[in-house]
Amino acid sequence: AGDIKAGRAKASACAACHGIDGISKLPEAPNLAGQTEEYLVKALNDFRSGERKNEMMSMMAKTLSDADVANLAAYYHSLGKQ
Amino acid sequence: AGDIKAGRAKASACAACHGIDGISKLPEAPNLAGQTEEYLVKALNDFRSGERKNEMMSMMAKTLSDADVANLAAYYHSLGKQ
Repeated sequence: AGDIKAGRAKASACAACHGIDGISKLPEAPNLAGQTEEYLVKALNDFRSGERKNEMMSMMAKTLSDADVANLAAYYHSLGKQ
Repeated sequence: AGDIKAGRAKASACAACHGIDGISKLPEAPNLAGQTEEYLVKALNDFRSGERKNEMMSMMAKTLSDADVANLAAYYHSLGKQ
């Protein structure tokens, strides 16, 4: 699993739309707080591979390494009340 | 916006993986509780149109009407603590 602290640092790039608290700041941006780690990793990898397309996310995801993906997934999952 | 009561009834078809409470019952299934309505509608419509592909969801989404999509989005959004 990823490193939550490293994920939090990386999440500064995501915070504008998803919030550092994982609560959506934009109607089209999903909440991420407490989301399942496996789903978060799959979503980020699909944006990286182009399996999933979104103007913003395709651009953002391409900057991420495998470790970033794991760390971000661990971080946002850790914010959950679930 | 959708009809939460109608959405709850329709959600019986989703509950196996997503839970009637919107908490994931399978590692690859995302939590839906409290997710933003716009994101839920977009996700379901993308699975219906084929913009997004997933073995299970592509099949499930094809059975849904526009009203079902709106109602399901309203229902699962309404479960949120956010």
